[in-house]
Amino acid sequence: MKVALDAMGGDFAPAVNVEGAIEAARENRSIRVILVGDESAISRELKDRKYPSDRITIQPASEVVTMAESPSIAIRKKKNSSIHVGVKLVQSGEADGFVSAGHSGVVMATSLLFLGKAKGVDRPAIATVMPAIKGAFILLDVGATVDCKPENLLQFALMGNTYCRMIMGKKNPRVALLSIGEEDIKGNEMTKEAFKLIEKTDVKFIRNIEGKDIFTGKADVIVCDGFTGNITLKVSEGLAEAILKMLKKEVSSISAGKIGYLLIKPAIRNFKKRTDYDEYGGAPLLGINGTSIISHGRSSAKAIKNAVTVASSISEKKVHEAIATAIASDLQEREHTVS
Amino acid sequence: MKVALDAMGGDFAPAVNVEGAIEAARENRSIRVILVGDESAISRELKDRKYPSDRITIQPASEVVTMAESPSIAIRKKKNSSIHVGVKLVQSGEADGFVSAGHSGVVMATSLLFLGKAKGVDRPAIATVMPAIKGAFILLDVGATVDCKPENLLQFALMGNTYCRMIMGKKNPRVALLSIGEEDIKGNEMTKEAFKLIEKTDVKFIRNIEGKDIFTGKADVIVCDGFTGNITLKVSEGLAEAILKMLKKEVSSISAGKIGYLLIKPAIRNFKKRTDYDEYGGAPLLGINGTSIISHGRSSAKAIKNAVTVASSISEKKVHEAIATAIASDLQEREHTVS
Repeated sequence: MKVALDAMGGDFAPAVNVEGAIEAARENRSIRVILVGDESAISRELKDRKYPSDRITIQPASEVVTMAESPSIAIRKKKNSSIHVGVKLVQSGEADGFVSAGHSGVVMATSLLFLGKAKGVDRPAIATVMPAIKGAFILLDVGATVDCKPENLLQFALMGNTYCRMIMGKKNPRVALLSIGEEDIKGNEMTKEAFKLIEKTDVKFIRNIEGKDIFTGKADVIVCDGFTGNITLKVSEGLAEAILKMLKKEVSSISAGKIGYLLIKPAIRNFKKRTDYDEYGGAPLLGINGTSIISHGRSSAKAIKNAVTVASSISEKKVHEAIATAIASDLQEREHTVS
Repeated sequence: MKVALDAMGGDFAPAVNVEGAIEAARENRSIRVILVGDESAISRELKDRKYPSDRITIQPASEVVTMAESPSIAIRKKKNSSIHVGVKLVQSGEADGFVSAGHSGVVMATSLLFLGKAKGVDRPAIATVMPAIKGAFILLDVGATVDCKPENLLQFALMGNTYCRMIMGKKNPRVALLSIGEEDIKGNEMTKEAFKLIEKTDVKFIRNIEGKDIFTGKADVIVCDGFTGNITLKVSEGLAEAILKMLKKEVSSISAGKIGYLLIKPAIRNFKKRTDYDEYGGAPLLGINGTSIISHGRSSAKAIKNAVTVASSISEKKVHEAIATAIASDLQEREHTVS
């Protein structure tokens, strides 16, 4: 599979992007990476490295979208940005998927604009992998569709289920609806309606899940609107950071604490590794007619490598087509039930 | 001030409730507590303890609302429940405020039914105190009003501001709107409208705050709808628990870890204490015409003591009247601007 990688996106671009691309290509011989961006900057990064030059190429793009830019202006004005050029490669079929650690709003809007939605999909969703005490789960949507209708949540459930099955290797994912109580009747107007819709699908719907239970590992796919999902994701990131800071402060305020902290430091490192987005690489934009992955701005080479590998896998397995099929067959089933 | 305390609510009732009541009365001579519930059970708890008997009395209530009950049925059928009788004491003026660690939905609905809303308030909000790296903040609403209009969020900002000033001693609280980006235009339709409304008030509005920043301590009052707030609160509780579990597991998997863990244990204890709801006691139901505090089901004696003390303080300072005044003067100002 050919993955177009935005070489200019992210806090440590293009160095980690180029390194991640090389690692991905080295680890998997079926992966080709097209590095999209400033040709001379990319060439400089490639120069002293050993890499499979037949599978790593450059596609020049003269502009870069900065994080402060407004998506609508960036999309209209920067037609030579690495994001624009990269997504266009997927549209034309020259690449199978796109990965960017750049401006997530622009990546999302550009992908939607040029690749379009998968057949039958009303609104797209960004799915992010989060660690649980046991295993991991995906949360969607975390920001693509901020104002949702119940039908959108239904489609997110089908999309998340398909992704989890095909890419995360779960045979029969447990799908839950994020709400404010376990009982069926708990929720806001949107989730209560969505509950009834998801209940009728053939996904393994384990009903509502409360905020306090999402990290227990009892669900594989957790569905919510993009506003709630984004807050959930960001609150989790912020709290994990705050807890480690507070713990460190408490530890250094007691006499034996510093020695104790040194002794448990490898454990904290392991913990951080386990909860790090690096491991998961990026968040796929589901529901579009193609492959597009949004990576964290702070992505390391490892995160980029993982994102490129996942993008290749999504493209190879044609997840977007499977999503369209899942939505079509759900619709058919519901029509069948009605008639 | 006279506080009616639901002696039967919570996982460890009536023992911790009675103990908390005694501690509150002992610490503050102006506090009287009316223990509401099963007279013989309460008497048994009081029997072997030393307590100021002139300031701790019993109000019999023969029924108890269980956690599994539906609020609407409990309210209609259990007219002798400790919650029903306790709130009625506030309604009749025999008590100044009510505290319960029982069924939060029933406490909320019963309080709203018998005490009514404060003048000018459209919908009530539950405000909860949460710890930040520096200090603490209040988040509201965390579950009273699940489906909100922008105007509700405006009122929550005014209510939270008033509460924070009067009870938490902040002169000029920094009020923020929970959203998915710092920029003014980020949010869902409801928060974008609410932003414009709050901007026009005279609260110190520090604009949008993202999920990742709520624990930094940059805001004193964080406003959101009851669905988002409940998820935020519960995700935080669940994640804090999950992180400590995961850390402990990582620690015990490395050789020096166990010794290290023993050495930092006092620090973890301090951390837990700092992040424990016990310290804050309970969450006030703001916007009603009186004082009602919802405490955590797992409340300890200390949590109950703190909740009773806060209830006394809210009643003494007439926070509900101040909220009505704040809402009226905001309305007046807006009408003035229009005309």
